[in-house]
Amino acid sequence: MTSTADETIAAPSEPETTDMPITDDEIFDAHRGGKLSVELSAPIATQRDLSIAYTPGVAQVSRAIHREPELVNDYTWTDRLVAVVSDGTAVLGLGDIGPRASLPVMEGKAALFRTFAGLNSIPLVLDTTDPDEIVQTLVRLRPSFGAVNLEDVSAPRCFEIERRVIEALDCPVMHDDQHGTAIVVLAALKGAVRFLGRELAGLKVVVSGAGAAGVACAKILKAAGVDDIVVLDSKGIVGTDRTDMVEYKNEVAAWSNPRGLTGGVAEALDGADVFLGVSAGTVDEKLIASMADDAIVFAMSNPDPEIHPDVAAKYAAIVATGRSDFPNQINNVLAFPGVFAGALDAGARRITEGMKIAAAEAILSVVGDDLAADRIVPSPLDERVAPAVAAAVAAAARAEGVAG
Amino acid sequence: MTSTADETIAAPSEPETTDMPITDDEIFDAHRGGKLSVELSAPIATQRDLSIAYTPGVAQVSRAIHREPELVNDYTWTDRLVAVVSDGTAVLGLGDIGPRASLPVMEGKAALFRTFAGLNSIPLVLDTTDPDEIVQTLVRLRPSFGAVNLEDVSAPRCFEIERRVIEALDCPVMHDDQHGTAIVVLAALKGAVRFLGRELAGLKVVVSGAGAAGVACAKILKAAGVDDIVVLDSKGIVGTDRTDMVEYKNEVAAWSNPRGLTGGVAEALDGADVFLGVSAGTVDEKLIASMADDAIVFAMSNPDPEIHPDVAAKYAAIVATGRSDFPNQINNVLAFPGVFAGALDAGARRITEGMKIAAAEAILSVVGDDLAADRIVPSPLDERVAPAVAAAVAAAARAEGVAG
Repeated sequence: MTSTADETIAAPSEPETTDMPITDDEIFDAHRGGKLSVELSAPIATQRDLSIAYTPGVAQVSRAIHREPELVNDYTWTDRLVAVVSDGTAVLGLGDIGPRASLPVMEGKAALFRTFAGLNSIPLVLDTTDPDEIVQTLVRLRPSFGAVNLEDVSAPRCFEIERRVIEALDCPVMHDDQHGTAIVVLAALKGAVRFLGRELAGLKVVVSGAGAAGVACAKILKAAGVDDIVVLDSKGIVGTDRTDMVEYKNEVAAWSNPRGLTGGVAEALDGADVFLGVSAGTVDEKLIASMADDAIVFAMSNPDPEIHPDVAAKYAAIVATGRSDFPNQINNVLAFPGVFAGALDAGARRITEGMKIAAAEAILSVVGDDLAADRIVPSPLDERVAPAVAAAVAAAARAEGVAG
Repeated sequence: MTSTADETIAAPSEPETTDMPITDDEIFDAHRGGKLSVELSAPIATQRDLSIAYTPGVAQVSRAIHREPELVNDYTWTDRLVAVVSDGTAVLGLGDIGPRASLPVMEGKAALFRTFAGLNSIPLVLDTTDPDEIVQTLVRLRPSFGAVNLEDVSAPRCFEIERRVIEALDCPVMHDDQHGTAIVVLAALKGAVRFLGRELAGLKVVVSGAGAAGVACAKILKAAGVDDIVVLDSKGIVGTDRTDMVEYKNEVAAWSNPRGLTGGVAEALDGADVFLGVSAGTVDEKLIASMADDAIVFAMSNPDPEIHPDVAAKYAAIVATGRSDFPNQINNVLAFPGVFAGALDAGARRITEGMKIAAAEAILSVVGDDLAADRIVPSPLDERVAPAVAAAVAAAARAEGVAG
């Protein structure tokens, strides 16, 4: 146990360091038998309980839903149930390890839905990677849940699968690796520029990584008013001059890189204001040094940031990572519990760009007056975040007319 | 509340009557928000908890399962997770009310798995009634659960679907409306004949109803040594002389009705020892009077038994129903929690006839020396039943070589 764990609860926006390293035994012990259980809302202890929860009483409820289908939202658990769906093709930094090996991650996600948003959540891992089959399976399962969190699906399949599942289902659907990340990055970047007394518009932003997270981050920043965004893949700057790219990167090229840069990360970072690392790569200290004054570096690769935050801090005004042992941890858990809770609270049929931007604003609002160079986002454990995000997302859904 | 509810807990094999009728308000209130929730095995309260249950710690567990796939049974919840699967085509006595309206029943079933066997269980209701699509969907979902309880699927589709799901999945699969009912009926009939000092072999048994439950009851009684079984459908005795029957009834005709009876329930019941009612019909008092001495009547139609038990008792030595307000309640909950727990405990790849017969023996064993005309099966609330059934089923699985 860490000596600062209790302080973290008391002052949740304070990052925490661990005294004792976490051992493998500790990790495996905590996972034995899985991390979830299905429990009863009320016990079945008497014959009367049994007659109410099961036959014959339950027939009344089934009959009522048959007569008036929308009552399913009032009298079953599905209205507050998120299916965490994965095919195990892009799990953490581990890659395509398959559905079974992805299950501990999906159970963890479900545990976080419960912990931070009070939502029910079940992992559904699929023994197929075919987009047609994944969409079809979720269509058939539609009556079983209230929302779908797509998770750890590889790019570029994830773009098609998310688009098609959204089209096919009349409920909130979000691929968290894309949009959860994008929401928290937007919140963090807004926090950083507010602290620095700057504006999003006018920033030169470099996104290193053109996978699910990179593209989603670039898109949300564009939607939020950042005009100069340069995206990099493993071969260099994503631009209209390139002829070696898959279709979705051509789309990115069409609306990014307004100065028509060519080359690699060196050309991109020269004079840039923001470095967003969402790849598994590294970036040289000299290139961070070549950025503009008051630079912002989010080195979010896990477990090894693209550049050590202490090194980045020599040149940058604000540094963030994905790690819990440095300040400014950019973690999706700040977004997804509240986003789904808000969407379900509002009975939203989908999750719009406006709802995502509202979520980012809400995350930032929790930091409030405590905004500092080492506190541009709240702690992932801050219990105020999910309710604030949920309220903002629900309000945005109502304002946009997608609420039920 | 009933005056005997507490006594029921103390003396669980005692049936219970209710003083106050259960009101619709009471039923709907108990169902508000659903009857289930997903909870954490251990809380996530500190940064250290988060680092163990989610990133980065969870990666160790995922990596281990990727390396050694059978570890999924140790480190995820699926090893003790039953999917309760329905298409909503034959829900209670309500018929084809669809997947959404079936959900309260499936939640109830999941609640009973937790209550009596400590198993996790999730309702998966499908927006398709096509057998190909149902089988295919479960094949794709296979990594998400440890066993499948098929529920409320209409006949004759249920026979094909169960057979094909069993063939397709390497885990325990059982259609409870067939085999749960059959197991409890076998237990009750064994209890009845033991009390009467008789034997199963030599009994003339009439099964009224040739749907999922009727056929399964007839089959398990045949397997348990009853030779003279006559099955009735809505048009009369199922026999080889009939030319109007669907295929599965022709199969039943091939091994039942050894005396070649023709006609209807009157011809079948004349001189019969056992009446098993698993239809929604009624049976005339005169016909029950025409049965042999020491007759056994299980009038299991719900909510209205084929004949009122007080009337049946004028002619029969043993009377049972599906109702909680009369003695000898024949309720599937005596079977399914223990059957699945035992199959999962043993790592069984399937549920064999031997395991079902062992389950029936175990149910009867709980009654033990308390066997009486009004106590041929334990109370559905008797907490001793599921562990006894689980132990017997697991032992049978091991003895038959289907254990993992």
